[in-house]
Amino acid sequence: MIAVLKNSTTKQQLDNFCEWIRAQGVDAHVYTGEFQTVVGLIGDVTRVDADMLSGLDIVESVKRISDPFKSANRKFHPDDSVINVSGKTTVGGDIFAVIAGPCSIESEEQILEVARAVKAAGATMLRGGAFKPRTSPYDFQGLRADGIELLLEAKKETGLPIVTEIMNANHLPLFEEVDVIQVGARNMQNFELLKELGKTQKPILLKRGLANTLKEFLMSAEYIMAGGNENVILCERGVRTFETYTRNTLDLSAVPMLQELTHLPIIVDPSHATGLSRLVKPMALGAAAVGADGLMIEVHNNPQKALCDGPQSLTPAQFDDVMKAVNRVLTAI
Amino acid sequence: MIAVLKNSTTKQQLDNFCEWIRAQGVDAHVYTGEFQTVVGLIGDVTRVDADMLSGLDIVESVKRISDPFKSANRKFHPDDSVINVSGKTTVGGDIFAVIAGPCSIESEEQILEVARAVKAAGATMLRGGAFKPRTSPYDFQGLRADGIELLLEAKKETGLPIVTEIMNANHLPLFEEVDVIQVGARNMQNFELLKELGKTQKPILLKRGLANTLKEFLMSAEYIMAGGNENVILCERGVRTFETYTRNTLDLSAVPMLQELTHLPIIVDPSHATGLSRLVKPMALGAAAVGADGLMIEVHNNPQKALCDGPQSLTPAQFDDVMKAVNRVLTAI
Amino acid sequence: MIAVLKNSTTKQQLDNFCEWIRAQGVDAHVYTGEFQTVVGLIGDVTRVDADMLSGLDIVESVKRISDPFKSANRKFHPDDSVINVSGKTTVGGDIFAVIAGPCSIESEEQILEVARAVKAAGATMLRGGAFKPRTSPYDFQGLRADGIELLLEAKKETGLPIVTEIMNANHLPLFEEVDVIQVGARNMQNFELLKELGKTQKPILLKRGLANTLKEFLMSAEYIMAGGNENVILCERGVRTFETYTRNTLDLSAVPMLQELTHLPIIVDPSHATGLSRLVKPMALGAAAVGADGLMIEVHNNPQKALCDGPQSLTPAQFDDVMKAVNRVLTAI
Amino acid sequence: MIAVLKNSTTKQQLDNFCEWIRAQGVDAHVYTGEFQTVVGLIGDVTRVDADMLSGLDIVESVKRISDPFKSANRKFHPDDSVINVSGKTTVGGDIFAVIAGPCSIESEEQILEVARAVKAAGATMLRGGAFKPRTSPYDFQGLRADGIELLLEAKKETGLPIVTEIMNANHLPLFEEVDVIQVGARNMQNFELLKELGKTQKPILLKRGLANTLKEFLMSAEYIMAGGNENVILCERGVRTFETYTRNTLDLSAVPMLQELTHLPIIVDPSHATGLSRLVKPMALGAAAVGADGLMIEVHNNPQKALCDGPQSLTPAQFDDVMKAVNRVLTAI
Repeated sequence: MIAVLKNSTTKQQLDNFCEWIRAQGVDAHVYTGEFQTVVGLIGDVTRVDADMLSGLDIVESVKRISDPFKSANRKFHPDDSVINVSGKTTVGGDIFAVIAGPCSIESEEQILEVARAVKAAGATMLRGGAFKPRTSPYDFQGLRADGIELLLEAKKETGLPIVTEIMNANHLPLFEEVDVIQVGARNMQNFELLKELGKTQKPILLKRGLANTLKEFLMSAEYIMAGGNENVILCERGVRTFETYTRNTLDLSAVPMLQELTHLPIIVDPSHATGLSRLVKPMALGAAAVGADGLMIEVHNNPQKALCDGPQSLTPAQFDDVMKAVNRVLTAI
Repeated sequence: MIAVLKNSTTKQQLDNFCEWIRAQGVDAHVYTGEFQTVVGLIGDVTRVDADMLSGLDIVESVKRISDPFKSANRKFHPDDSVINVSGKTTVGGDIFAVIAGPCSIESEEQILEVARAVKAAGATMLRGGAFKPRTSPYDFQGLRADGIELLLEAKKETGLPIVTEIMNANHLPLFEEVDVIQVGARNMQNFELLKELGKTQKPILLKRGLANTLKEFLMSAEYIMAGGNENVILCERGVRTFETYTRNTLDLSAVPMLQELTHLPIIVDPSHATGLSRLVKPMALGAAAVGADGLMIEVHNNPQKALCDGPQSLTPAQFDDVMKAVNRVLTAI
Repeated sequence: MIAVLKNSTTKQQLDNFCEWIRAQGVDAHVYTGEFQTVVGLIGDVTRVDADMLSGLDIVESVKRISDPFKSANRKFHPDDSVINVSGKTTVGGDIFAVIAGPCSIESEEQILEVARAVKAAGATMLRGGAFKPRTSPYDFQGLRADGIELLLEAKKETGLPIVTEIMNANHLPLFEEVDVIQVGARNMQNFELLKELGKTQKPILLKRGLANTLKEFLMSAEYIMAGGNENVILCERGVRTFETYTRNTLDLSAVPMLQELTHLPIIVDPSHATGLSRLVKPMALGAAAVGADGLMIEVHNNPQKALCDGPQSLTPAQFDDVMKAVNRVLTAI
Repeated sequence: MIAVLKNSTTKQQLDNFCEWIRAQGVDAHVYTGEFQTVVGLIGDVTRVDADMLSGLDIVESVKRISDPFKSANRKFHPDDSVINVSGKTTVGGDIFAVIAGPCSIESEEQILEVARAVKAAGATMLRGGAFKPRTSPYDFQGLRADGIELLLEAKKETGLPIVTEIMNANHLPLFEEVDVIQVGARNMQNFELLKELGKTQKPILLKRGLANTLKEFLMSAEYIMAGGNENVILCERGVRTFETYTRNTLDLSAVPMLQELTHLPIIVDPSHATGLSRLVKPMALGAAAVGADGLMIEVHNNPQKALCDGPQSLTPAQFDDVMKAVNRVLTAI
């Protein structure tokens, strides 16, 4: 870490500054130039607060040199992580993970029908929302505990591992039979929730926040890993931009960039990112082509009747078509 | 709400669409133009999901006409809300609220010293962080329950009502003597937390999320109000932009804009927004000038030693200077 | 277009408003609801200024229903446009366009060597920067007229049509032998330049601005087309987001979205978007997979020595590898 | 400037890298750590291209330490610049500049009436748009040369210096009697235009681009100054954010931040930033309170009939009221 000091800094201030840094167990090297003085902080600077430094009156700017994430950092863990899902499948490694299912679980009939269809088309896991984060308190909030019950029935019948979102750590007992626990974009920096999930050994599917950088995304993964749970799956699901034709902007360059920064697997959710079912196929093909470890796709037996997010769902037939095309792309690259 | 249909829509699809809308208890009026068909949804469209509509294959775009927020809407509540704080002060109304104190509570000596100083300078409430949301799990997370104890001591000694942040609804029992509960920017859409706070009658200081619109901000207030707690104080604290010299970009136009949209009071936090103590004074004056109902300012007895966010803190002497200047501006406008 | 009026609007104001609208040759239909009055503007509203309407005191908000672009609109021109490039190749149609070459033209040797290499690998056009838009006046500004001379030599030798950027309409005489004129991202809304290019019949490669929406992008295409030049090629080159690991964020969903909105062809520039040569291959494959009509890729014979933007350039051998992989993906989808 | 190298960098690559840096006339100091090697570039690094460095395969990241702007930099010019406007008034210094007038010049009667009114209320300069940058080619583009004629008449009658926007350097002869030439937000990075303006000695009012950082803003000022024209006035006019209730988000913190970075004066345009006349007064007061050197405000004799941007215009009476309140705030701070 490097602190650039203002050229009005006095010798006394510089000395105080260096002393204060050293008191934090980090070494301070001073380089004096014509117009500014630069102090290099050497040692374990993970615990030095860059925001704090940059706020000091004598400091003009602060530059981090090393990444603040450790457990997630590929530098200290060069091999790809392969996340084991209940011994039945993996995310990362040789399997291209495909998590498919309805945005919201609505009924036994619905979830079973979709589960059978996505399994037949080659999905490796079933998704379904029981607890739903909605911008409006007046929108449908999910079937909650009953939804998880229905999802477990679908798991039992099809054998597909299941993925569903958690919004409150107090609900963890309901997730005992859930194979992968999802953390939604709006909770990416709900640190209290991340800490609780770090105490479990469940695979956690962590979605990128709507306006978060890759560094923040990895720091949230780090919260889970620092607690002892290294089973983190990253999910790119679109970021907020000024564009309004699409709901969000799917950042496919995040995939190869994250693969360079971290050993954790990265999957892509084209359904939420675009909000438009007709864009799911091209963006799923794009995700496969850029090297993603998998996809998360909304499939509904009757999109027009879905209680939420219907418009971005594929029919089972459309999903089957997407799977075939994705497999062709995976073979081509 | 208005749905613009594609010009490829068939008569049969149009009829199905209208039938489906009416099944949701909303009337549908069809206007047919040369290149497109427009369907007006008339009635209580609060519960119609615009995202869902816009995802349907036949729908080109959806435009909301009425605001999705009700309890917070000035249209249905023309008078300003004045939030009573434990019978000791208010936010909104004739009092210009000034909430001051350290970012993090560090010790009894620290919080008492700051509390006395800000009271002497004219603060109406004392703030101090006990639970701290930090991007990195390796950064200081606050004194937690012990911090609240220290804050209560300061309240006892100075008589100042206290404001502190909650990150987990399970901690609510610790907040019994807290006068105003703060929800941080990263939890603005932690809907489970908002719902729990809606069941209390405590004043809630809700901070705007880093990349959230005013509409989303008001919808989060709505979550609290829909639960029965109408004591919501809005806090503008800067939004994320491409600028990096300042930590965030303080959106002062949010103040008069929100005052038009809602009856809830709006305060401004120039400390977190800029991240630079030397910008706090000008931005505090700006906030007073645009008509804010109050300020939230970080004050520390020794900024260089603060465990977090020190650089954006004022010394007690600087705070006193800001208060005097703010009062001059309040008199001038 | 729909104007939602405030509920404080008087009958007299409403009448004045409608009269004023009708004076602009557009019909006004009034719908009165419980809490608001909505005025529908029917007819040719292209010339009604939505910004102006939304600023009127009695107007709460304005919603556009029809797209403001006409010549570029697929609704009025359902078939894909195929842009003819000097009778030698096309953009759009059956040919997948690949425009390759150095960011800046540096020397005869350099441009000839690169031109031969990219032709051998299958590029359909040669690019090279003569006039360079640089953030700093102290950075290399390009060889200017001399650069175009060198590019013309490369065209002569290899037969490849050439693409180069214009920054000033006064330079148009220098572009007579240039096959495709490029407008850079920073000039996307340089309307005076667009108007001048609209008077030519040259194919124009229009790059999306760094923070512009697809609607604004199409409105800029519209400026060229309104002048009589329908030969516009759109180029997605990344938008500005909060992410800093990559220079910009390549918006691949813009490709299928634009294909729905317009008949103009869309190509993708993964080199500028990411700013990192090691991300060019995955993003080029992604662009092919989402259905782009072509690619624009930087290739340099010695990236470490490039005068500008070297780091995002591929070597000829890397480019050849990308081309082979792109062709496999094109066959797969 | 500091380059952080990847830990895979070989000794040979490191030597080549340092040699290449030194060949550019800059010294290279190597610091080797456990996990990475850092190379410090010492000397005049203004001409080293950070983008290029960061693209090299062995480079992980590049951090600038010194600002890339020189002429505009307060470090090398500690005193505030005061821009002399035709010997009649100044921007910066003791005078609080107020530039007022209509968005578009429409008629002799209009511009004269507004000019007299704003002079009476205390404006120091008259503005009026003759060349108008509009997103749509179908929107009114201004009276162009005729508009400037009318503006000159108003100058003659009232004695007020005039400010108007240029969009094309070829129009410069029309601007001979114009006192301050404005460059609009969309042309902030029209480098060819900036270079031409750098050859004049006219005061240039440079507006910040819609999604540009303060550093980019200052680099554009640098383009003008590097040409020999040091008479640059900066104008904050709102940046693009995700908020849609206001047209843009006025960044008032840019004022004190820029005052720290540069010696150039900074004025604020609340009319364009908000797009809503009812927000102009509070934001003008905010601008005065944060320490701006002046304001630019739209005033129209009949806002409802303005050909463009009417809704954000004040009536003369409203402007007079704003002026009085602004003066009270200026006295208070």
